[in-house]
Amino acid sequence: MNGARSLVKTLIASGVDVCFANPGTSEMHFVAALDAEQDMRAVLGLFEGVVTGAADGYARMAGKPACTLLHLGPGLGNGLANLHNARRAQVPLVNIVGEHATYHRHLDAPLTSDIESIARGVSGWIHVCEDAQSVAADGARAVAASYGPPGQVATLILPADTAWESSGVPADPVTPCSPALPSSERVEEIARTLHAAGSSAVLLLNGSALSEEGVALAGRIAAATGVRLFRDTFVARVTRGPGRGHVSRLPYFGEQVVEVLDGVQHLVTVGTKAPVSFFAYPGKPGELTPDGCSVHCLAEPEEDGRGALAALVEALDAGKIAPAVETEQRPPLPTGALTPEAIAQALAHLLPEHAIVMAEAATAGRPIYSALRASAPHDWLDLTGGAIGQGMPAATGAAVACPERKVISLEADGSGMYTLQALWTQAREELDVTTVIFSNRRYAILEMEYHRVGVGAPSERAKSLFDLSRPDLDWVQLARGMGVDGARATTAEEFSRELARGLGEGGPYLIEAAL
Amino acid sequence: MNGARSLVKTLIASGVDVCFANPGTSEMHFVAALDAEQDMRAVLGLFEGVVTGAADGYARMAGKPACTLLHLGPGLGNGLANLHNARRAQVPLVNIVGEHATYHRHLDAPLTSDIESIARGVSGWIHVCEDAQSVAADGARAVAASYGPPGQVATLILPADTAWESSGVPADPVTPCSPALPSSERVEEIARTLHAAGSSAVLLLNGSALSEEGVALAGRIAAATGVRLFRDTFVARVTRGPGRGHVSRLPYFGEQVVEVLDGVQHLVTVGTKAPVSFFAYPGKPGELTPDGCSVHCLAEPEEDGRGALAALVEALDAGKIAPAVETEQRPPLPTGALTPEAIAQALAHLLPEHAIVMAEAATAGRPIYSALRASAPHDWLDLTGGAIGQGMPAATGAAVACPERKVISLEADGSGMYTLQALWTQAREELDVTTVIFSNRRYAILEMEYHRVGVGAPSERAKSLFDLSRPDLDWVQLARGMGVDGARATTAEEFSRELARGLGEGGPYLIEAAL
Repeated sequence: MNGARSLVKTLIASGVDVCFANPGTSEMHFVAALDAEQDMRAVLGLFEGVVTGAADGYARMAGKPACTLLHLGPGLGNGLANLHNARRAQVPLVNIVGEHATYHRHLDAPLTSDIESIARGVSGWIHVCEDAQSVAADGARAVAASYGPPGQVATLILPADTAWESSGVPADPVTPCSPALPSSERVEEIARTLHAAGSSAVLLLNGSALSEEGVALAGRIAAATGVRLFRDTFVARVTRGPGRGHVSRLPYFGEQVVEVLDGVQHLVTVGTKAPVSFFAYPGKPGELTPDGCSVHCLAEPEEDGRGALAALVEALDAGKIAPAVETEQRPPLPTGALTPEAIAQALAHLLPEHAIVMAEAATAGRPIYSALRASAPHDWLDLTGGAIGQGMPAATGAAVACPERKVISLEADGSGMYTLQALWTQAREELDVTTVIFSNRRYAILEMEYHRVGVGAPSERAKSLFDLSRPDLDWVQLARGMGVDGARATTAEEFSRELARGLGEGGPYLIEAAL
Repeated sequence: MNGARSLVKTLIASGVDVCFANPGTSEMHFVAALDAEQDMRAVLGLFEGVVTGAADGYARMAGKPACTLLHLGPGLGNGLANLHNARRAQVPLVNIVGEHATYHRHLDAPLTSDIESIARGVSGWIHVCEDAQSVAADGARAVAASYGPPGQVATLILPADTAWESSGVPADPVTPCSPALPSSERVEEIARTLHAAGSSAVLLLNGSALSEEGVALAGRIAAATGVRLFRDTFVARVTRGPGRGHVSRLPYFGEQVVEVLDGVQHLVTVGTKAPVSFFAYPGKPGELTPDGCSVHCLAEPEEDGRGALAALVEALDAGKIAPAVETEQRPPLPTGALTPEAIAQALAHLLPEHAIVMAEAATAGRPIYSALRASAPHDWLDLTGGAIGQGMPAATGAAVACPERKVISLEADGSGMYTLQALWTQAREELDVTTVIFSNRRYAILEMEYHRVGVGAPSERAKSLFDLSRPDLDWVQLARGMGVDGARATTAEEFSRELARGLGEGGPYLIEAAL
């Protein structure tokens, strides 16, 4: 069998059975292997940013990697921004990039480029396959590497001849490393600190500490000690809603973080680092830990955050303490003008049980996180790396991972335009995704940031670079152009009606919320 | 003045007066400088692939660089594929990438990435600015570097504090290097070879050898010696039509190149290299120069191809020889079914004088190049680096460079979906671009390539990865969603009518040609 087929067989045996793809000529043998090995699902994206973002969203919900199939350096480049986001989400992802045949590279044909250099910054692991015989074993190592810990992008560069030569040998799956637990000394020291500190301490959570079990464990610790629970501003996934504990979100702007953490004496990190400002601003601090506050690491990102919380519960003898949990509270449907608050209220009223909410709604989406706090059990996914254009692709991948769950994709108009091609994949795969476009027709965050960096008020020229009108985008036409039905809502009542309609459909639907 | 303002002043003084931009927070001081310095035009693209592709198309037509303004590593990643194409086009391009403040990078905030590593493969020159005082001089060096020779992407990485600190000093423009001429020995040796070889010799042209003057000089050489004229398969720009000489295009597939060059004894390259296969295929050659054929270099890509041809004309004493030129020939309008040939015929009938034709129509566009040979004087631009998604952005940039000329954007549906956001910029800037989408609803080239790599016939699974139906794309709705009017044509008559309408508009128009 050829290298490609041995690789696909090995990926399937290793649990990788979804391939998000946009192949080219150099990937044709891999495509033929997908033809032959029917246990891997192949999902086409019409742009590589869709492919990589979908693999990220898939991994967040499936807890295991999908593979991509990208065409040479430019295909990788097109997918790079969402690989950056996946890297920051610390999800497992097997990133397969086709390459010219080994003996063709030196000819410098037009599509030749330095693929490793492009891949380096987003990949925790990179390997260039050398021959067909070792391709499958390389693939098994890529899967293992993708699990980290923490999860990471493992990039496998696949020269065409290593795919087509007939010396392929399927390989046994390689076992990924398990994340380590913190030492008992570290756990006990933090237990003592929390006992003494009470509400002047904060637990800052990310990674597996935000799983359903992790949040429940953190809730026990909070009940036992009075420590307050926070999560990073942007996380890959957090489990929320009635029956689950509440974890506060650190705000986006540095000065707000400073305010929220004012008076905190002990910051305990679990699966994350002490908070820093998203951007630098003239005269403002980059490190946001309050002066005089001690930072304690319970678990590094590469360690077992959930397990560390379990150990801390034990050290605190808090296993029998019932954590505080939310009880279901739903607001009435909103009426009147369509505002971000009205959208949040409608979502809180209508949110289906166990929905997946992919949030890339930027400024207009801010009221939603707290509005959904007690509406229905759900998973909330953030834009993790700040590279806009993650939302619709990640929603697509999440829907592939969880066909039985409703996906709600909250998308800013400016961010949505980056990877709108995701709607086509949602239509082709009949994915159950309701998209809400927050159509304020501007990069509103940049209007704010222009003021915040201290350059005064923007004149017409600068404003034109933040403005998405002239011409107005018509998202309903864009969606229909890709086979997704939708409607525009201009009042709270229209929005609620369209949201109910979208949530009632079994497939994709788009609502342009005119703000 | 701050660093950003000193930089923008210096760019303008160096002739760089168009900025294709999609800025973020770290670029706000540059945006403020654009507000203050009104001699630089700022053009917003809703995705960075539009920004970089537009800068490529602009440079091809303006003969000088535009600058980009990109947001950190992910913004650069999104623009990377079209920077790859620009690199292969050998156009000058000043690629400005914002970066976190120098003192913020070590905090590893979410958007932090290794920008230099991403930029390396596409950039002939890279520099990370160190302080505000030297930013303007860095910018002047970037402009000079972008001219090469040959033209190249010069990437200037601009940490936010080097833009905002107040120690900026405008710098004098730096003079770019002129390309060198080949030695007179080389020219005379080639002159002797061509005299002896006659029609068993071929001149293979690219770069400035394909300018109006270059083609005229090559025509004199052909008339004097019998040498046949070819151009590379993909070129940044070639001047064609009535009153100009004809240069044959090397075909795309390697076996066709071998056929076309069969019997050639001497291959003389001018501004290019000997031909190689675009991809490797099992059992097929990568180097396409015929066995026994000698390759002679008249001018390397970094040398002065047009000047080398002038020297060769002189060595051949051919300055008074009239080159063969095309005389205007226009076919009648086509009737009946809408085929690629009918589209080519309608274009040949209706082509306006001095149009710019950006060709990314892939398989369906093949009849057009020869059909336009004698229809009207025009410039023809190819997809140069094989990274699809170049056409609509480059057409956008060409229209910015040449507001008095009609731009015709020939676009495959699969390629067009990569960077469809370009249509919005065409609408906002009221650019005179008529787009023809060759809507065959598949990646037809991949169907061919699947056969060519020798893996048999694709089954349903592989076919689904080449297929752009299920659902069908509706390009008229997509265009209207971005403010560009358009129509779908299903017959030759409808297509001709819509083409005439589009060419008669002063702004953008899109025709979906249903094949």
